Amino acid sequence: MKLRVINPNDSQLMTEMIAHSCRSVAPMLDIDAVCAGAGVASVEGFYDGARATSGVLDRIAEGETAGCEGYLIACADDTALHAARELAQGPVLGIGEAAMHAASLLGCGFSILTAQQKSVHILASNARSYGFGVHCQGVHAMQLPVLELEHSDNTDLQANLIQRAQQIIAQDHSEVLVLGCAGLTTQQPMLQQALGLPVIDGVRVGILLLEALVRAGLRTSKHCSYSRAG
Amino acid sequence: MKLRVINPNDSQLMTEMIAHSCRSVAPMLDIDAVCAGAGVASVEGFYDGARATSGVLDRIAEGETAGCEGYLIACADDTALHAARELAQGPVLGIGEAAMHAASLLGCGFSILTAQQKSVHILASNARSYGFGVHCQGVHAMQLPVLELEHSDNTDLQANLIQRAQQIIAQDHSEVLVLGCAGLTTQQPMLQQALGLPVIDGVRVGILLLEALVRAGLRTSKHCSYSRAG
Amino acid sequence: MKLRVINPNDSQLMTEMIAHSCRSVAPMLDIDAVCAGAGVASVEGFYDGARATSGVLDRIAEGETAGCEGYLIACADDTALHAARELAQGPVLGIGEAAMHAASLLGCGFSILTAQQKSVHILASNARSYGFGVHCQGVHAMQLPVLELEHSDNTDLQANLIQRAQQIIAQDHSEVLVLGCAGLTTQQPMLQQALGLPVIDGVRVGILLLEALVRAGLRTSKHCSYSRAG
Amino acid sequence: MKLRVINPNDSQLMTEMIAHSCRSVAPMLDIDAVCAGAGVASVEGFYDGARATSGVLDRIAEGETAGCEGYLIACADDTALHAARELAQGPVLGIGEAAMHAASLLGCGFSILTAQQKSVHILASNARSYGFGVHCQGVHAMQLPVLELEHSDNTDLQANLIQRAQQIIAQDHSEVLVLGCAGLTTQQPMLQQALGLPVIDGVRVGILLLEALVRAGLRTSKHCSYSRAG
Amino acid sequence: MKLRVINPNDSQLMTEMIAHSCRSVAPMLDIDAVCAGAGVASVEGFYDGARATSGVLDRIAEGETAGCEGYLIACADDTALHAARELAQGPVLGIGEAAMHAASLLGCGFSILTAQQKSVHILASNARSYGFGVHCQGVHAMQLPVLELEHSDNTDLQANLIQRAQQIIAQDHSEVLVLGCAGLTTQQPMLQQALGLPVIDGVRVGILLLEALVRAGLRTSKHCSYSRAG
Amino acid sequence: MKLRVINPNDSQLMTEMIAHSCRSVAPMLDIDAVCAGAGVASVEGFYDGARATSGVLDRIAEGETAGCEGYLIACADDTALHAARELAQGPVLGIGEAAMHAASLLGCGFSILTAQQKSVHILASNARSYGFGVHCQGVHAMQLPVLELEHSDNTDLQANLIQRAQQIIAQDHSEVLVLGCAGLTTQQPMLQQALGLPVIDGVRVGILLLEALVRAGLRTSKHCSYSRAG
Repeated sequence: MKLRVINPNDSQLMTEMIAHSCRSVAPMLDIDAVCAGAGVASVEGFYDGARATSGVLDRIAEGETAGCEGYLIACADDTALHAARELAQGPVLGIGEAAMHAASLLGCGFSILTAQQKSVHILASNARSYGFGVHCQGVHAMQLPVLELEHSDNTDLQANLIQRAQQIIAQDHSEVLVLGCAGLTTQQPMLQQALGLPVIDGVRVGILLLEALVRAGLRTSKHCSYSRAG
Repeated sequence: MKLRVINPNDSQLMTEMIAHSCRSVAPMLDIDAVCAGAGVASVEGFYDGARATSGVLDRIAEGETAGCEGYLIACADDTALHAARELAQGPVLGIGEAAMHAASLLGCGFSILTAQQKSVHILASNARSYGFGVHCQGVHAMQLPVLELEHSDNTDLQANLIQRAQQIIAQDHSEVLVLGCAGLTTQQPMLQQALGLPVIDGVRVGILLLEALVRAGLRTSKHCSYSRAG
Repeated sequence: MKLRVINPNDSQLMTEMIAHSCRSVAPMLDIDAVCAGAGVASVEGFYDGARATSGVLDRIAEGETAGCEGYLIACADDTALHAARELAQGPVLGIGEAAMHAASLLGCGFSILTAQQKSVHILASNARSYGFGVHCQGVHAMQLPVLELEHSDNTDLQANLIQRAQQIIAQDHSEVLVLGCAGLTTQQPMLQQALGLPVIDGVRVGILLLEALVRAGLRTSKHCSYSRAG
Repeated sequence: MKLRVINPNDSQLMTEMIAHSCRSVAPMLDIDAVCAGAGVASVEGFYDGARATSGVLDRIAEGETAGCEGYLIACADDTALHAARELAQGPVLGIGEAAMHAASLLGCGFSILTAQQKSVHILASNARSYGFGVHCQGVHAMQLPVLELEHSDNTDLQANLIQRAQQIIAQDHSEVLVLGCAGLTTQQPMLQQALGLPVIDGVRVGILLLEALVRAGLRTSKHCSYSRAG
Repeated sequence: MKLRVINPNDSQLMTEMIAHSCRSVAPMLDIDAVCAGAGVASVEGFYDGARATSGVLDRIAEGETAGCEGYLIACADDTALHAARELAQGPVLGIGEAAMHAASLLGCGFSILTAQQKSVHILASNARSYGFGVHCQGVHAMQLPVLELEHSDNTDLQANLIQRAQQIIAQDHSEVLVLGCAGLTTQQPMLQQALGLPVIDGVRVGILLLEALVRAGLRTSKHCSYSRAG
Repeated sequence: MKLRVINPNDSQLMTEMIAHSCRSVAPMLDIDAVCAGAGVASVEGFYDGARATSGVLDRIAEGETAGCEGYLIACADDTALHAARELAQGPVLGIGEAAMHAASLLGCGFSILTAQQKSVHILASNARSYGFGVHCQGVHAMQLPVLELEHSDNTDLQANLIQRAQQIIAQDHSEVLVLGCAGLTTQQPMLQQALGLPVIDGVRVGILLLEALVRAGLRTSKHCSYSRAG
């Protein structure tokens, strides 16, 4: 099964981190991980997401030609998600969406930890749109630029992450933590170990949910909203 | 990976149909399909679900001892879901829940087709509780007893199902159809073919989502609501 | 008028406290207070509630035979409420439900004080399901085991309760306090006196609302969801 | 126990009908039924309700002096409800509100039948504000002027009412009918008998709920919103 | 274009402040600013608003005769708004409503600063009713009587306002501040300058939105809810 | 005051129609109407909107350099709205959004008439996101391609529009009609005349609301979500 993973930003290093996480949980899949190529260094807010959109769509169009059976958009704001569904025949998931779905199945209430305050409103609004307005008990920023997260072996960063996550879980009375940033993908095992509760990385869970949908014989509905006019 | 599938009613034939659907999409898994054994012939409404609860929980308890890594509750009303999560270490999904999650990822709005009018309120209420109050654009009964659905090769039944489904999709302006009854599991391929849009059988998609959560290293949160006091 | 009060847990002492509260506000009624008899020492969370369910239903079935005209389920999680309504001809109320209805009529926003953190999500979820998602401004735990509340003359406990309640009212900007635990029933007069605002004990208000429904000639609707198939 | 019932319109005949309904279910109470006296012949829409407001408040003020322990506002739009609570020490209920609360306890979903289309939005908006936005499955007009309802022995009117009610219940898949007009109070027994499901008259259930709150020792919260500044 | 501005309270000084704000942003309009004349010194809570209602309606009725093309109700609780629409042909806006609409267009989430705690629930409830339940991230009181705000050159007051506003913005993570009290109208330029984000005075933005609706050729719908029966 | 109006599609004829509507209600403004220039012939669904996004943003960036004080995005789906706000200093409105705000102020419930079924979900989802999930009582398609609407003097088209609008108003019990398509802008006066209730063209009301915000001294908040990082 060939699935394409599209990183909306153009960091090759982050794309490799994302591909690595996908392969760690789904070693049998043919994972084709690419940058969107729209010239956005990192997606921080509405404008970056809008500018990355055309790149995401171009990579979907390529994927259709290349026989990809499904797509994972690897940014927590789920860049260009609905437009991508209009273009693709197979299922399309965003990592923000995938993580929230999984979180709602594993505990009564989750919190989202994202990189910057600018993303908080976007993720909270997405949570409501997906149906998780009640389940999502808080969205919080670490106040770190996304690209710093690439240095995953930084132990100070790890200690800060654990402390911030514990504080959020306590404050929100949440039972699951969602990582609201692709750059946190490598931290999931460490954080889950440290916190003692489910920590959801949308990259890992997203590629597996995508595989599940394809194996179930399900594709994007072409009945109305996601149809492409002739 | 050993996953247990629990049919809340005590129809052995329906349990076999459910097991068959699971194995058709997940042939590599060790699927352990059982009846709840609570003496409920078919779950039609609140009372039947309540009476089946203790059987579902007993089967979860057994599964924990037997090393099951996850559980699928194979009734569209997701019988005893939250209590089961308190008992299990691994993830627990209901087929109603699993189907709705999948449906919301594949189109803008879904409808649910269930067996009897008595289940309509239960499924609509569950949809709201899971977060899909807006995505679920209608819940409709076929007005058939659940056990009649065991005769899956009845062509009159199939023609009736197709016609009813088409009417529901048109009336609700929906883009995806959810089968709100385990007894419809064998009809999914036929209905999806006939309707030309995604038809979600919670049994098939549920076992695959469950596998995905386990492979992602995720278990039920034991932080508060689903913890078991000493 | 004969009304049955069912305590889902099997504490005879708590059942007596509950009966006493009912009789203190409704001395003319024939109050038949019983334990569910399902072997649950105290209902703390989803699992306990699920295990108590069959006992609650058995007591309803008995009551129907004995000519009871209505039922009060005396646990704040409203154990088995919908299934009980399917079985009974007269009205069935839960004390959690009754208390929230009363609270929403007496002030702009209420808070719920419950025994343990494990019950917080259940009561908050029930509040949303009943329609009080906006009116309920917070659910908070005392962090006490339910059975300790039986010792109602403990003045340290009373001082702690008052202080915790005051803190909750201030934090939530609430105008009414709901006691989210049957074990708090004896504390209602003391707490209302101390706080100077309405304190709602679902036992007291529940038995009176139940009487009101019966006197108004109203019974549970048997039109669809709460009907019992032949 | 002395309870005051205030009819916001100035029809003495309707006030007598209302008083009669109250006394039929609560013969032991001292029921003091009065017209608001604000010069509004019948409350049909926002403007009439606003003009009746000062009369309702004057009657509450009088009642406080006269030792009334609670108040029922006998118009389905619950005229001046929140302002009345600011003035009164005891509980204040509106009949629209009381009927919706009762309806939500007796079936899964109710419909409201009101006199005129102009009231439909008001009652639907009140339903949402009280928390019953989901429970209330439809508000429908009979298209009759309120005052014609005074002629309760008109058999053509009764046949029309039954037919309209049956149509609404079928269309909304509702399980309980709420009478959204005080003028329908005398029709409740006939309609409940004819429809075979609970029919809620806010006058009857309202006076009993009010009595229940008073007997429970509960009064309007004076903590903030309903307090009166010195 | 002749527009009437109605101050529900009877403070002539506050009416002049309100008129001054209107003229400062709309110098070309014929602004007719009047007190409601209902004998309410300042509108603080439900009761005051209810008592001011008849005065507001009388001033609308006068305005209709005098050829006013639209109305602004200059109290943050939008006193008598729906009844006024039933009476007027042109559009009717409340300043609370106008300010919230504008705020939702300028940032992701707003907070409301009002005078007294008694108004908090009213404004929060209005926000939900208008559709801004999610956009409005908090309503907070200054704890000042409305009439003290007339002394707009008080520098201590200004420093307190700035500090309270900064605290609210930080606590709520809001991006826009709404002034929830007509008495704050003169403070808008100062506060906007000090805070560095949009500060919405419903008086200023309300008169301009009203003008916009009239210039667009739009009047209050007389199709059903706001129609006046013959 | 210089305001820029951006038509996300590249129809010069439609841009002229839009500019004409703006000037008809705001003759004193300096209206700068442009096509987005992204190569999208007409915006019909998610994909077209996503592809038009970069063009809209480029035109905003130009406008900032040219001293534009505000922007109107002239497509009913409010293409690129949030990203545009991040780029602009002045206010940015979409015509869909502007029309819904105006509609909610003029009647109790509105319906939206759009061109194609593919847009129905988008507009309904936007309505919910803006807060009008309850006020918007239906979104309906005419089933016409957008570009056919350019031929505004077609009397058959007009008769069809009137008939369809009347049907929608009756079915939804709505009191205001929103035109959910810029191509309908020229039909507003005809439709409002024919229907006898407010018909909202987001182009006309949008340019006036934009002018109102600028005249009120309000700009887009740069506090967090709409800020641009250095």
